[in-house]
Amino acid sequence: MALDKKKTPEPTLRRLPRYLHLLIRLMEGGRTEVSSTVIAKELNLDPTQVRKDIEYTEITGKPKTGYNIAKLVDAIRNFLNWHIDKKAILVGVGHLGTAMLGYSNFEKYGLHFIAAFDTNQKKIGTKVHNIPIYDLNDLPDIAKTHDVNYGILTVPPQYAQFVTEMMIEGGVRAIWNFAPTQVKVPDNVVLENAQLTQSLAVLSRKYVELLEREVD
Amino acid sequence: MALDKKKTPEPTLRRLPRYLHLLIRLMEGGRTEVSSTVIAKELNLDPTQVRKDIEYTEITGKPKTGYNIAKLVDAIRNFLNWHIDKKAILVGVGHLGTAMLGYSNFEKYGLHFIAAFDTNQKKIGTKVHNIPIYDLNDLPDIAKTHDVNYGILTVPPQYAQFVTEMMIEGGVRAIWNFAPTQVKVPDNVVLENAQLTQSLAVLSRKYVELLEREVD
Repeated sequence: MALDKKKTPEPTLRRLPRYLHLLIRLMEGGRTEVSSTVIAKELNLDPTQVRKDIEYTEITGKPKTGYNIAKLVDAIRNFLNWHIDKKAILVGVGHLGTAMLGYSNFEKYGLHFIAAFDTNQKKIGTKVHNIPIYDLNDLPDIAKTHDVNYGILTVPPQYAQFVTEMMIEGGVRAIWNFAPTQVKVPDNVVLENAQLTQSLAVLSRKYVELLEREVD
Repeated sequence: MALDKKKTPEPTLRRLPRYLHLLIRLMEGGRTEVSSTVIAKELNLDPTQVRKDIEYTEITGKPKTGYNIAKLVDAIRNFLNWHIDKKAILVGVGHLGTAMLGYSNFEKYGLHFIAAFDTNQKKIGTKVHNIPIYDLNDLPDIAKTHDVNYGILTVPPQYAQFVTEMMIEGGVRAIWNFAPTQVKVPDNVVLENAQLTQSLAVLSRKYVELLEREVD
C-alpha cells in the first residue's frame, strides 16, 4: 500500500460518517443507488469533494447511476474499521462519562466498553449502564489482561496527562480525549481530541461571520 | 472587511481552542511570551501552520520573542466571539443533555444556558443543574421572548429535524447538533455538527493506519 494512502485527511474522515448516516437513511427509504451530486446536495457539500472523499474507500461510482448504496455503506464501515469490534475503557464516570457509557450506538461503530475507572470509592465496584467501574489504580493491569484498544478520557483536565500515561502503560494505543486540555502521547499512540470547545469554536465563529455578512 | 476574511477554514477554527488551552497553561506558569515554534512543538503541529492560523486573529508575533501571550489569548477569544455572552437553549435532557447542562466551563466560552426542553412530563417543570426544563411545545415562544442565539440538539435522531425547525421558528440562528443524524437548515442559519461519530471516525481510521504502518 502506498504511503499516501495511509494518511487520510481529517476533514475527509469527518465527512465519511455523514455520508454513512445519509446512505443508511436512503437505504431505509428503499433506494439502491445514489450519485455524488445527490449526496452533495443533501449534505450541502461540493460533488467533487464527495467523489474525492469516497475514492479513499476504494469504491468508484458508475457514470450514470452513481454508487451502489449497500456497497458504499460497507466500504465506508470497513475503511473506518467499524466492522471490527475493539475493546474500550473509559476513565472518569461523571456526567459526560456516564453519557458515553450509555451510548448504545457505539457498538455499531466497533466500540465495545469492557470497563470504566474512577477514583471515587462510592462508584468503584458498582456498574453504570452495565459496565463495571474499577479503581483507577487497577487500570494498567486490567487493560493489559483484556488487550484493550481504545482509552476514553472524560476526566477533569488536571488528571488528563496522568491517566493518559496509565492507559499507555496498560498497552492502550488509541486515546480519545474529552478532557478540556491537551495531552501528549508518543508516536506509537494515536490521539484524537474531541473537546467540545473545538466544535464550539466552529459554531461561534461561523455565527459571527453570518451576522457580519448580513451587516455588509 | 474583505470577503475572504469572513470564512475562516474549519481546521483553523478547531485548532484555535487548542492554542488557547496551551497559552492559558503557559500564562499560569508565569510566561509572558511564546513563539510559534514552541506552540507547534507543544501541540505536535507545523510552525507555519500555527503562524497562519494565528494571522486570522490579526495578531502578529515579533521576530525574536514571538507573541505576547496575554494579547494572543484575548485575540483568540475575541475572534471566536467567546468574550460576549450568548443565550443558549438545549433540547433533550437525557444523559448527554444533562452532561452538557452541567458543563460549567461553557460560560467561559460565551455560552449561557437559559432553558432546556423535553417531552417527558416527569422532567418538565424541574431543574437540571439549575436550568429550568420546559415543555418542548413552548420552545418557539420562549426562544423568541429571550432572543436566544444558540440551540443545542441532544435528542434522538428521529426528532432532530423537527426540533431544528422549532428552534428556527423561535429565531435561533446557530444550531449545535449532537444528534447522530443530519439536519437541514436554511442559508441564514449556522449548523455545526458535533456528532461523536465524526471524531470516532478520525480515531478509528488513524488507529488502523498506525497498525498498518507497523506491519509494513
